[in-house]
This record gives sequence, structure tokens and C-alpha cells, in this order.
Amino acid sequence: MSKKAVVLLSGGLDSTTCAYLAKAEGYEVHALSFNYGQRLAKELDSARAVAQAVGASEHIVMTFDLTKWGGSALTSDAIDVPTGRSVDVMEESIPVTYVPGRNTLFLSFGLSYAEAIGAEAIFIGVNAYDYSGYPDCRPEFIAAFQEMARLGTKAGVEGNPIRIETPLLHWTKAEIIRHGLAVGTDYRMTWSCYQGGDQPCGACDSCLLRAKGFEEAGQTDPLLASV
Amino acid sequence: MSKKAVVLLSGGLDSTTCAYLAKAEGYEVHALSFNYGQRLAKELDSARAVAQAVGASEHIVMTFDLTKWGGSALTSDAIDVPTGRSVDVMEESIPVTYVPGRNTLFLSFGLSYAEAIGAEAIFIGVNAYDYSGYPDCRPEFIAAFQEMARLGTKAGVEGNPIRIETPLLHWTKAEIIRHGLAVGTDYRMTWSCYQGGDQPCGACDSCLLRAKGFEEAGQTDPLLASV
Repeated sequence: MSKKAVVLLSGGLDSTTCAYLAKAEGYEVHALSFNYGQRLAKELDSARAVAQAVGASEHIVMTFDLTKWGGSALTSDAIDVPTGRSVDVMEESIPVTYVPGRNTLFLSFGLSYAEAIGAEAIFIGVNAYDYSGYPDCRPEFIAAFQEMARLGTKAGVEGNPIRIETPLLHWTKAEIIRHGLAVGTDYRMTWSCYQGGDQPCGACDSCLLRAKGFEEAGQTDPLLASV
Repeated sequence: MSKKAVVLLSGGLDSTTCAYLAKAEGYEVHALSFNYGQRLAKELDSARAVAQAVGASEHIVMTFDLTKWGGSALTSDAIDVPTGRSVDVMEESIPVTYVPGRNTLFLSFGLSYAEAIGAEAIFIGVNAYDYSGYPDCRPEFIAAFQEMARLGTKAGVEGNPIRIETPLLHWTKAEIIRHGLAVGTDYRMTWSCYQGGDQPCGACDSCLLRAKGFEEAGQTDPLLASV
């Protein structure tokens, strides 16, 4: 039986790279996406396309409604998504696009799924380099989650703790793109923009980081090339 | 402004006691329940009644579907809930009613909610004494979750980590009932049975533990008295 991994798949550039890296490492990919009331339902279309392209064995979309308590520009209409900021400014503070407890929730669902199907790892595309403002993207958070998961699961108690795999953790966006392309990642169907439009806005934090990444990698963004 | 606490409220005896203890400590209670595909929808009716009785400022029911991956007698029709077991046997192994990652998920939602509303604590009625078979009811799991929460939230980074409060952790069921009654807990509307019937089955692990608790506390279970 082949080894299984749960891959948290938003349909963005980072998580898509993660899915291709897991595949390249020989894992049977079980993709898990979330519909949590985020503004950008377009993400989920991208996630579905990526799951198919990477040959995932299964793709589950877990739905829950974080707008019940809001607290973020991504789940509340009352807070605007910032645009046109320099990358340096982004790194100075916790952004309004931070969703309280989001990665904790995503990893917790991944943990439940992984334990139910006997997967040995959960891949998550967190990145401490470009997203230093998000507390739940830091290496120490990931390490603490893994320890908590070891103690709180049957798998962990029985000596087979589920590993949290974060291959992108210390890479720049350009390095992510280079590593992704090296394992055949198809970036045409990925979606990064925080705004809900049909085309990337080109001005939000996420669009700016993506553009910088492709530029530094010396590559053309195939999503923009196909527009 | 009064201090706020999120109370994870299943509508069972333990979480109900927790809600009353939080209230007695002067917290404004924000109750959070989960509809995750568990067999016993009756629990949620109890949770609603308890939230009202304890005077909760808000009661949110978060819905998500753990039957998408099953793995437990509580979320899968393929696994039977055991009945008629002695309490000694229950403690020997991880029960089939264990739901992969359940308390991790519940606490993660609690964490997101607490951070969004500025609550300083999350109350959860875990108990290491009667539920030693559940890995996610152990003190070391709770401690690890709290550390992870400190590192993964804006509140934690800013020096105000959200506390996980587990007043019931080391109490026997009889002690829980005695402490609960001392702060005025109304147990008439609580629901413990793992089966889905109109009346408690009296034979599942949960019914047996409850009966033993009331007996040892020298009290009559008001739920049964009102039948």
C-alpha cells in the first residue's frame, strides 16, 4: 500500500507547490480544502483544478462558517483588504487579512482526516519568509502544533505520530517557484489574489508577493501569460 | 467591560458544569456548540437549553461534517456504540467512540472565536479521570494546545495568550456533580447518552459513568427523576 499524505490545498501558489512536492516524494495525495466564508470562492475552483491536475486520490472540501465571529478582512465585509503596500511594510505588523486561528483550524481538520485514513503526514504550504506577520506561519508554531498532535491522537499515543510537513517554510517566493517548476508544478490554475475579481487585481499583498516571486525567479507567471 | 470566556458546550453533564463554573467566576459566557455529524442531535437541543439557563450572552452552533472521513462510532454508522461495559474495561483502551482530532478541532474553533471577540479564556469540560482512554482529554495534551495557541495567535504574540481552563480535569464524576450543584448547575436539561433515543439508554459508557457519578455523589439524577 502506498504511503498517504493529506495536503492542505487552497488553490494558491504555495499550497499547489506543496501538493506537487508531496506527489514527487511518492505520496498518495489526499487534498483538503476549506470553504470557511472567505471572500474568494474562486480559490476553491482553483483547488479543484489543481487536485485533478496533480492526480489526487481524493479531494474533500470542508465547509464551516468563520463569518459567525468575523475578525478578519478575509471573513468580514466590515474590514477592507489593503492594496498597493510595499513588501517591506507588509512584514512589519500582523495584517488585517490575518484570520484568528486559521492555520490551527486547517491543521486540526488535516489531523482528523489524516488519522481517519491512516495518512502519515500533513503537508501545509506555510512560509515564514514572506509571511512573517502571521503568527501561525512561524516555525515555532508548527513545531508546537506537531507536539500537540502527537499527544492528542491515537496515532501519536501508539507511537506513530502524524508529521507536519512544511517544505516551503524557509523559502523565498522565488525559491518556491523554482522548486515547484522543478517537480512539474503547473501554475496556470493557481489563484493568489485576495480580491474577488475574475482577474488578479495586481495590487493586494498577495498579488504583489507573487509578482515579485516570478520576477526574482526569472520566470513569467503563466496565469498572467494566459490572460 | 466584563471579562469574557468561550465555553465549549455539548449539552452534556461535564460541559454544562463548566458553563456554570465560568459564570460563577464572573465571566460573560459565550457558548460554542458543534454540529459535526454526531449521531446525537439531541445534544444540541440540550446545549441550547443550557445556554439559555446559564444566561449566556451568545450561543453559536458551528456546523461541519466529520462524516466526510468517519473513523469513529460517533460519526460513522459502520461502527457500533458499545453498551453494557464495566467502567474498568472502558479505561483500558481508546474507545471506538473516540473521534479523530475532535478536541483539537473544538479547541481550535474556540480559539478562533475567543480571539475574534477578545475573550481571555476557553472553558472545556475535559476530564482525565473517567476518560483516560481518550488521548485528547489528557493534561499533557491540554498543556501542549495552550502552548501552540500562545504561539499561533495575535493575542499570544502580543503577550495576552488565551488560557485554556479545564476545571474538571482531575475530578471524578461525583466531584464534578458536587462542585456543579454547589454553583447552582441545573442538570435537568443535560444529555449524556451516546444513543439517539428519547430517553437515556442506561447502558452505554456515558450513561453508566453518569449513573455511577450521581450514585457516588449521593444525589438523584434530575434527568431520570423527571422522566
